[in-house]
Amino acid sequence: MSDPLDDILKQVQEGALSPTKAREAFLALRAQPLGFATLDHDRRRRCGFAEVVYAAGKSPEELVQIARALLGREGCVLVTRAEADHVYAVRGAFSDKPIEVGTRGGTLIVGTSPEPLKGLPAIPIMTAGTSDLPVAEEALLTCKALGHPAIAINDVGVAGLHRLEPHMPVLQSASVVVCIAGMEGALPSVIGGLIQAPIIAVPTSVGYGASFAGVTALLSMLTSCASGVTVVNIDNGFGAAYSACLINRLGVNDE
Amino acid sequence: MSDPLDDILKQVQEGALSPTKAREAFLALRAQPLGFATLDHDRRRRCGFAEVVYAAGKSPEELVQIARALLGREGCVLVTRAEADHVYAVRGAFSDKPIEVGTRGGTLIVGTSPEPLKGLPAIPIMTAGTSDLPVAEEALLTCKALGHPAIAINDVGVAGLHRLEPHMPVLQSASVVVCIAGMEGALPSVIGGLIQAPIIAVPTSVGYGASFAGVTALLSMLTSCASGVTVVNIDNGFGAAYSACLINRLGVNDE
Amino acid sequence: MSDPLDDILKQVQEGALSPTKAREAFLALRAQPLGFATLDHDRRRRCGFAEVVYAAGKSPEELVQIARALLGREGCVLVTRAEADHVYAVRGAFSDKPIEVGTRGGTLIVGTSPEPLKGLPAIPIMTAGTSDLPVAEEALLTCKALGHPAIAINDVGVAGLHRLEPHMPVLQSASVVVCIAGMEGALPSVIGGLIQAPIIAVPTSVGYGASFAGVTALLSMLTSCASGVTVVNIDNGFGAAYSACLINRLGVNDE
Amino acid sequence: MSDPLDDILKQVQEGALSPTKAREAFLALRAQPLGFATLDHDRRRRCGFAEVVYAAGKSPEELVQIARALLGREGCVLVTRAEADHVYAVRGAFSDKPIEVGTRGGTLIVGTSPEPLKGLPAIPIMTAGTSDLPVAEEALLTCKALGHPAIAINDVGVAGLHRLEPHMPVLQSASVVVCIAGMEGALPSVIGGLIQAPIIAVPTSVGYGASFAGVTALLSMLTSCASGVTVVNIDNGFGAAYSACLINRLGVNDE
Amino acid sequence: MSDPLDDILKQVQEGALSPTKAREAFLALRAQPLGFATLDHDRRRRCGFAEVVYAAGKSPEELVQIARALLGREGCVLVTRAEADHVYAVRGAFSDKPIEVGTRGGTLIVGTSPEPLKGLPAIPIMTAGTSDLPVAEEALLTCKALGHPAIAINDVGVAGLHRLEPHMPVLQSASVVVCIAGMEGALPSVIGGLIQAPIIAVPTSVGYGASFAGVTALLSMLTSCASGVTVVNIDNGFGAAYSACLINRLGVNDE
Amino acid sequence: MSDPLDDILKQVQEGALSPTKAREAFLALRAQPLGFATLDHDRRRRCGFAEVVYAAGKSPEELVQIARALLGREGCVLVTRAEADHVYAVRGAFSDKPIEVGTRGGTLIVGTSPEPLKGLPAIPIMTAGTSDLPVAEEALLTCKALGHPAIAINDVGVAGLHRLEPHMPVLQSASVVVCIAGMEGALPSVIGGLIQAPIIAVPTSVGYGASFAGVTALLSMLTSCASGVTVVNIDNGFGAAYSACLINRLGVNDE
Amino acid sequence: MSDPLDDILKQVQEGALSPTKAREAFLALRAQPLGFATLDHDRRRRCGFAEVVYAAGKSPEELVQIARALLGREGCVLVTRAEADHVYAVRGAFSDKPIEVGTRGGTLIVGTSPEPLKGLPAIPIMTAGTSDLPVAEEALLTCKALGHPAIAINDVGVAGLHRLEPHMPVLQSASVVVCIAGMEGALPSVIGGLIQAPIIAVPTSVGYGASFAGVTALLSMLTSCASGVTVVNIDNGFGAAYSACLINRLGVNDE
Amino acid sequence: MSDPLDDILKQVQEGALSPTKAREAFLALRAQPLGFATLDHDRRRRCGFAEVVYAAGKSPEELVQIARALLGREGCVLVTRAEADHVYAVRGAFSDKPIEVGTRGGTLIVGTSPEPLKGLPAIPIMTAGTSDLPVAEEALLTCKALGHPAIAINDVGVAGLHRLEPHMPVLQSASVVVCIAGMEGALPSVIGGLIQAPIIAVPTSVGYGASFAGVTALLSMLTSCASGVTVVNIDNGFGAAYSACLINRLGVNDE
Repeated sequence: MSDPLDDILKQVQEGALSPTKAREAFLALRAQPLGFATLDHDRRRRCGFAEVVYAAGKSPEELVQIARALLGREGCVLVTRAEADHVYAVRGAFSDKPIEVGTRGGTLIVGTSPEPLKGLPAIPIMTAGTSDLPVAEEALLTCKALGHPAIAINDVGVAGLHRLEPHMPVLQSASVVVCIAGMEGALPSVIGGLIQAPIIAVPTSVGYGASFAGVTALLSMLTSCASGVTVVNIDNGFGAAYSACLINRLGVNDE
Repeated sequence: MSDPLDDILKQVQEGALSPTKAREAFLALRAQPLGFATLDHDRRRRCGFAEVVYAAGKSPEELVQIARALLGREGCVLVTRAEADHVYAVRGAFSDKPIEVGTRGGTLIVGTSPEPLKGLPAIPIMTAGTSDLPVAEEALLTCKALGHPAIAINDVGVAGLHRLEPHMPVLQSASVVVCIAGMEGALPSVIGGLIQAPIIAVPTSVGYGASFAGVTALLSMLTSCASGVTVVNIDNGFGAAYSACLINRLGVNDE
Repeated sequence: MSDPLDDILKQVQEGALSPTKAREAFLALRAQPLGFATLDHDRRRRCGFAEVVYAAGKSPEELVQIARALLGREGCVLVTRAEADHVYAVRGAFSDKPIEVGTRGGTLIVGTSPEPLKGLPAIPIMTAGTSDLPVAEEALLTCKALGHPAIAINDVGVAGLHRLEPHMPVLQSASVVVCIAGMEGALPSVIGGLIQAPIIAVPTSVGYGASFAGVTALLSMLTSCASGVTVVNIDNGFGAAYSACLINRLGVNDE
Repeated sequence: MSDPLDDILKQVQEGALSPTKAREAFLALRAQPLGFATLDHDRRRRCGFAEVVYAAGKSPEELVQIARALLGREGCVLVTRAEADHVYAVRGAFSDKPIEVGTRGGTLIVGTSPEPLKGLPAIPIMTAGTSDLPVAEEALLTCKALGHPAIAINDVGVAGLHRLEPHMPVLQSASVVVCIAGMEGALPSVIGGLIQAPIIAVPTSVGYGASFAGVTALLSMLTSCASGVTVVNIDNGFGAAYSACLINRLGVNDE
Repeated sequence: MSDPLDDILKQVQEGALSPTKAREAFLALRAQPLGFATLDHDRRRRCGFAEVVYAAGKSPEELVQIARALLGREGCVLVTRAEADHVYAVRGAFSDKPIEVGTRGGTLIVGTSPEPLKGLPAIPIMTAGTSDLPVAEEALLTCKALGHPAIAINDVGVAGLHRLEPHMPVLQSASVVVCIAGMEGALPSVIGGLIQAPIIAVPTSVGYGASFAGVTALLSMLTSCASGVTVVNIDNGFGAAYSACLINRLGVNDE
Repeated sequence: MSDPLDDILKQVQEGALSPTKAREAFLALRAQPLGFATLDHDRRRRCGFAEVVYAAGKSPEELVQIARALLGREGCVLVTRAEADHVYAVRGAFSDKPIEVGTRGGTLIVGTSPEPLKGLPAIPIMTAGTSDLPVAEEALLTCKALGHPAIAINDVGVAGLHRLEPHMPVLQSASVVVCIAGMEGALPSVIGGLIQAPIIAVPTSVGYGASFAGVTALLSMLTSCASGVTVVNIDNGFGAAYSACLINRLGVNDE
Repeated sequence: MSDPLDDILKQVQEGALSPTKAREAFLALRAQPLGFATLDHDRRRRCGFAEVVYAAGKSPEELVQIARALLGREGCVLVTRAEADHVYAVRGAFSDKPIEVGTRGGTLIVGTSPEPLKGLPAIPIMTAGTSDLPVAEEALLTCKALGHPAIAINDVGVAGLHRLEPHMPVLQSASVVVCIAGMEGALPSVIGGLIQAPIIAVPTSVGYGASFAGVTALLSMLTSCASGVTVVNIDNGFGAAYSACLINRLGVNDE
Repeated sequence: MSDPLDDILKQVQEGALSPTKAREAFLALRAQPLGFATLDHDRRRRCGFAEVVYAAGKSPEELVQIARALLGREGCVLVTRAEADHVYAVRGAFSDKPIEVGTRGGTLIVGTSPEPLKGLPAIPIMTAGTSDLPVAEEALLTCKALGHPAIAINDVGVAGLHRLEPHMPVLQSASVVVCIAGMEGALPSVIGGLIQAPIIAVPTSVGYGASFAGVTALLSMLTSCASGVTVVNIDNGFGAAYSACLINRLGVNDE
């Protein structure tokens, strides 16, 4: 992919563009100011994926405005942490587009998500318990919006480890695994001792008392005695899936 | 065992003791003032075991004085958290007695520990890693001082669960299990899903960074998704073993 | 009880079962996948009691589905942390079964709880104050569902210790005591100095300000100067009662 | 006691003092600048006692300089948190004065402490355990420096409450009680339920693990279910004794 | 006041009472079991004031039942932390009694509060800001229920210290001062440098962000550089006033 | 500006005022007691701006009463943290005055805000993300009420740093910059490495999980590796803007 | 690679092995008990790399014994967190082997580290400041021991972002990046906005005060506004490099 | 000052520089790689002051190497947090230069600090107590290295506020004030209510127990009820003085 910065510099060199104009061109290329927000249209070039919209703290109108601007350049937009009024506004504004809504965790895909690249392995999204499902849903929809296949493995926490057995072949052949758990967050440590793929651990706010809204699971995962475990923020199914997709595509990037 | 309080009240009833004298007799029976300390000689009657001495914060002289007073009534004294100067002073003061010194964790048994009661099952003292051994040592010596057999199962943490296999028969036949782990402290959750005995979990200060000197293991154990797990203070091998002995003797208390 | 794993291995040895089939048989025996959940039907064999259902974070439909699957194999199911909509759904789905609902703490027994084993001593469930009653209720219903008798001793906190006096005979003859307290959580320390049974301390979220929703009581119980005290998570009446039942049955397990 | 501010204002009124001079006079009366420190010689007038010197963080030379300036106006100076080099420097500088050194907690009285006022009741300084003695020593020497009698009651923690019995008459007749405890800090709650005097609770850093260097005892005391308990900083024997003396003198302030 | 325990012992000595009966008499004298609660009718004898009822976590029915039992022996009952439904139930149940309701902080006096003892000085109840008024109200009503006069001094925080000036005569002649502040909680430190009376500092949950619901004010007060300051739990206007009354009556206890 | 204190002292000197009267005059000049509040009318003289009203915890009636008293002396009043009922009451009470209401963050300007002083540079108010806008609004309205021009630069967080580019000229010529960010709060560190003006960093409570309601952003800003960054409380747009105005006016204070 | 478990089952099926013998064979294959430790020789089969030894808390003798057992099966052993006495003992015990010692962070490679696989891209190990070098060293040596090339990019923190420029080509072509930073830990957020590779962020304990020994950097990284960032424990250079190698080999695993 | 970036772009436009060369020139201008460090020689252009060296975590040799590189371009270098071996190495390496060493807080000025700009007001550096002096020293030397006059005002904490009186004229005429305090950190709140200049508050780690090594003072300052207070990290005398100098020069920037 040619770097627009190089194009602009080349034009400057060739006299086709004054430095002043070059600066303007450069800026216009990369960011769209909406007043209350500044869209980063250059994200896909730099990072491989377009901007994802975090709905919390935005008004429904702002969300719609941002989504509209992004959909002008992208096939679909991923929205996380949407409340009911966000969903309502999005449905109203984009009634002409397919919209997938995760009913547990407030995740939306507006527009048509990309076909998965051929040869991409499926990413296992594991949960320790049923109460972790909203976070898993966010992760599953993120994979979909980014064009990666995923597979759900639910309720296989460490108090009944034999439940893992039927899933071992899938886990052992994965490029990367997302492992979601609340309470004491022990599942990634056990999985880390059983497979060769890197594990992205997601602590959840499931539990009460000394769970401290996910802090205990977070600390537990950070101090895991198993190697190969990295951690994201509490309940951050999106972030885990995003990183997992970055890793997953390495497995096919030479083909 | 007859309750001394009843004896005294009976003598009052029979006129053999005035209320004033009764009050004095009652008090003398139960506590010995040393000025800097007040020994609780009534502990064995009430709780089943004599006082145990926590050495931290006491001068070597005070420790010796307390131990001497207790050894006037008990066959042995258990001392925890002793520093080098405590050990030195105790060895000097009680050169005529057997003294067992735990070299890792500062635990001492001064005097002759009791023969284990017949029929008492051995208490498994498990560690997740080698670095947890000082806490295990404190637990093992506590069991010995209280007259209970114990068995060490070391370095069987969750990153290599198959290491548990050879020990399953012992674990499955125990009345109670002490389970010691640092870092993410996940071992008790896994054991709790595999056996029927109550588990006393001991978090240790093993680890660094987000281990927070054992806090993470502590919180992890408190929020265990397995049932049947109770928890003691960080590094409290003594407390775990003490409770384990209270439980262990239930198994034979009708014989 | 014969171990199904041994049966399967024996059939393999005898040629009655291929290794492939053996693997399937083994797995089918132990876990029932519901998609959103994976039931651990092997729990009773391993741990002595069937699975207990933690309702928080589950939809009413999921709760009913799980309860139905468990009731296919068990006489009763214990549900904790149920909200009003959980209770409503359960009542609707199992109108043909007896259902006991704890009105303070969201605990349910669906089906017929077992008759207590003969010779089991009653487990004292103590509270320091009236505000601790929801946690005590969860503990009492857990004992009932597990087939153990229990006895409530309420509002005997340390600011009026004489209130303990009438209950001392019960406490002194118990195999294990559950001790529930909020605020500074001092009751287990005092009880620990008075009796011989192991004490399971339950901190509650009762209090305000520096109570920190039960953290102060939790820390206080963990650092108790009394021996024989172990601790469970804040407000975890279920966990305390579960461990207490594991201990309580030791008193009769040879009869 | 006539207020020097009034004297100065009166002189202004009478023309004996210009406003400019009055301002200077006023300031000179109240604070002595040493460059690195500004002594508050007005403290006794405002608060009833002269400045007390907190040695931590001061060089030995600075401590001596401050003490010398105070001894120019006061019969004795109380120094807290002194290290060995502080003590050495003070002994060298004031070899002509009586110096009392607390060997446990780094407290010094330089000069002659005042005779206790007649009719002042003794202040009970209680400790839960032997390891709390350094804090008690600081409290006892503070009482002495401030001219109040005190009485030590040691090692009467809640795991052996009967040890309190012989001390009840003293406690019940006191105007105020200082109650020092580490670990779970439960002693003030129990005492608070037994007597009528206000209790000043001092958490100590005694303990390990979840004691968090006294934080647990501090929180426990702050959330005490007993009324009449107020709290000072961890290990602050000085502050507790100081407040206790302020209260104690109320008992005789009309005589 | 003759000690009922002595009476009973004397009757035992004289043969008028068997030990068994004596034990019963003793217990009946001191605690009234209501099932969900155990009332401490002996509190006034031991501590000088009757039980105060903490309404949080109690049902309105339980509150009424407890209040009725206490009103059978006391002229008035003080209730703290009452919600609207508590107030409603109390008004309904005791429509024949005067009821004073604090509208800001949920404090109630049911029945007739005692006339203040003659010669008792008024207790200043200071607030740093208007938002601290609910806590001050709880303190003021507590003083009233305990029979002590009090005086409110509001909104005199450290950002405008000159506002203290008109109140200095009252503060300087008080036996004890209650000082209530949120945010950085600096007021007690400043007052502590200006007066001779002991100060009871009450941190409040006023503020946001790094105020941490009163924790910052609490820590600030505990580490005050001024002497003579002791601290109670966050928002604990009751506890501060209770201790203040204990101290305040010392000023007249010989008359 | 002549100091009223000097005037009064001078009158005392000249005999025109008795000391008693002088004290009264002095006090009346500086504080207006409303019972529940004590207004600091001397604030402008001492600090350069009049009192600002923090609405949280005040009743609407109290807010109106305070605002009215201030408006008696000031052209406008700034109110922060107003809820809907505060706004409603203010609108009703001051229907004759212009009222500007910030719809995102509960900030009000009642009355006419001052014309900005000539020559004052505009203060850039930057946000890292759209969700930080309520805090920015509070800062912008504070600048307006204090008479300083401000300029909003929104949604330029560190994940797309090129968005800063168009704003560099404004930032590089500012006297002071207010930099608002939630989550990891990294924006001030990056800005601090790019400009010469002092930066006032405002952490916001934007984020979830390990954001801990702004604590992470707060700590991040406090430990910034860039020099020239100082920090205010979480979400404290008012405080940041207030300090920024104090700094901003330095640039013109000689003209 | 053939699974030894399958071999054993096959032999059982063929009658070549009794179930009892099979169980023993199975266990012997996987774990070597040393008494104080239980070596997991099966780790390489399951996870792709052999066990790594965490030296902290182990005696030098134990470390040597463990290293010797591992070197019996592996070409080299990686040791982390070694103290001086560990290094001394290892040098003495393995004087016949090459030993590489990291002088900053206590990391050792005993034996010959493997040649990097052809075609593996180099892993950039970035530090924000010079004080982060010990953690970088641990990461670099871990890569070496695992057979992956790495490249150090030092001191490019966010206060001088232009320092990143020369390194952009390396960063943009990497499969994975390790990003190490203390204080506010902002570097990963900035890098995350500039490249396409997954980033493993390592917070360090560099800093003072509100850095809280790395907690601030940890939280900052967890809440990064950039996507594609996952986090490991504070100062865990080993864990970050280990996960990075797991990811890095995906790029070539089909060749 | 002409921007080197513009020069380079102009040369590109004029054909005097190829884009490739321009890139190199640009980078060479701005950063000097030392391997373990990357010096930011562009800092003075961007931020107004050259890089300051944080010695903690650097070896003495590294510190010398960095200082030498900076002294090649700057008249003096400021070093903070130097240990004894850092000072020793610096003295050895730069024996030909003046070196000023702060003996309390490890601050060094190597080389000749600049003459203060004419017309700059002195910056008051206030301490609440003598134990805060090391932080004040760091602030004073920072002012000196940056060319700003400063004035020390020591030991004027809130427990004796009258000590502030003689310093009011200096405080009232300052452009900015640095206010250093430990324990409860109340001094900035009081000063904030008395003057018009912005206040930079520095919490110190002075105190014990609930001071939590400065956290309490930090939180107290962040929640100050006074306006105009911003805060830096605990013990960060350098950062406070640096920001103060940025503000202080605004007062003369038009002359």
